Amino acid sequence: MPNEQDQVERPVQRAGPPVIILIEPQMGENIGAAARAMRNFRLSELRIVRPRDGWPNEKAIANSSGAGQILEDAKLFISTADAVADLHRVYAATARQRDMVKAVVTPRQAAVEMRAARSNFEKCGIMFGGERAGLNNDDLVLADTVLTTPSNPEFSSLNLAQCVLLVAYEWHLNADDTPPRIVTDDDTRPANKKELVALFEHLEAELIASGFLWPAEKRPAMVRSIRNMIQRANFTEQDVRTLRGAIASLARNS
Amino acid sequence: MPNEQDQVERPVQRAGPPVIILIEPQMGENIGAAARAMRNFRLSELRIVRPRDGWPNEKAIANSSGAGQILEDAKLFISTADAVADLHRVYAATARQRDMVKAVVTPRQAAVEMRAARSNFEKCGIMFGGERAGLNNDDLVLADTVLTTPSNPEFSSLNLAQCVLLVAYEWHLNADDTPPRIVTDDDTRPANKKELVALFEHLEAELIASGFLWPAEKRPAMVRSIRNMIQRANFTEQDVRTLRGAIASLARNS
Repeated sequence: MPNEQDQVERPVQRAGPPVIILIEPQMGENIGAAARAMRNFRLSELRIVRPRDGWPNEKAIANSSGAGQILEDAKLFISTADAVADLHRVYAATARQRDMVKAVVTPRQAAVEMRAARSNFEKCGIMFGGERAGLNNDDLVLADTVLTTPSNPEFSSLNLAQCVLLVAYEWHLNADDTPPRIVTDDDTRPANKKELVALFEHLEAELIASGFLWPAEKRPAMVRSIRNMIQRANFTEQDVRTLRGAIASLARNS
Repeated sequence: MPNEQDQVERPVQRAGPPVIILIEPQMGENIGAAARAMRNFRLSELRIVRPRDGWPNEKAIANSSGAGQILEDAKLFISTADAVADLHRVYAATARQRDMVKAVVTPRQAAVEMRAARSNFEKCGIMFGGERAGLNNDDLVLADTVLTTPSNPEFSSLNLAQCVLLVAYEWHLNADDTPPRIVTDDDTRPANKKELVALFEHLEAELIASGFLWPAEKRPAMVRSIRNMIQRANFTEQDVRTLRGAIASLARNS
């Protein structure tokens, strides 16, 4: 039987999503908005160190818009060291340059790293300082990595909740497979070329009858121009039927 | 001399950055926070259609934190059609599924497209609906493309200013060249291998003298383990000097 002291304790499940840690937040509104942003992007674990206005906070609840459960489940801590004690990897969100040698990552890179860490059973957290002073250096040394959001160098100070939002957003997007561009296709589909050619021929026949495609020697160029215009429009099969109805109606009444 | 009517008016400069258009926004706080988010990511042109509480709005100013100029320069419009009249490409930010056939893009894809459009002299704008009702269908048909932020399907409603923030953030990042990960290098640099080997040898000599690397047959494995541990730590040249000072101090007092 192996010596029990030789056993390294290993988690048996993948670690949960990153924890958001607010250190000395001042305004309840921002705590509430941070909770809402967390829920928007499927984070759920909030820790708060010494909130200025105590806890629970009515303004936080009012501003959380449907993310009240995150506030109810939030854990309070007296010290930053306690708040990060069980974590394996901690990021410190700050825009400031410090006289510390520490890796600095973007929110997007942090998301990449935290996904990898999670798969490696490491629980991650991101610390955010209070609205006025940000993180102090003693908190900062508890972090592995600084997280800095690229922004306007002349106006880089992000609102606390918006900073939480960007971190949560990048975390979510890292595992999101939404196609960058789709066309909604409720009850229709793009027109096929046969349908488009039938539209061209219908329109051209009526335009010849009405005298628009005139003089005849200019007709081929005019037809190509109209066909190109319609081709570019990405019509659906339903659009083509609507247009042909409109053409028929116009032609009947001319 | 060509017929003047044959001339197409062409802009001579690249179009400016995208315009943010808030349609019937309700809360001044959100208008102010949107302006702040715009300035964080170098957008500057704000248009507002029928703000509920009139204009100017004290709460907007109070919540804009240094982006007051964007509010001062904001243009008011009576109708959405007027607000988008000079634009060539309009995105409609909405989470809702509509019974309209329209392309839907992510904020990241919108940033790609708007950069390309800008280079093609097309001026772009993004419309955002009011907090309660969002965009109505008559506004929506004025847009080329729907912009939908991927989010938690069970809680997809983003705060208005936070939605503006994400669009502005992606616009900014599309042209941003911040490295994903760097190590701050104020007055130092990573240790080179010569410096690390000197540290290894210094430490090992002192550990042999103190009796730690014992018994001798286990020494090679212990040394490799310690070297690996130090190798992983990404020490700087300054760190190595600090450590060697600490080792010398410990050895002297043993």
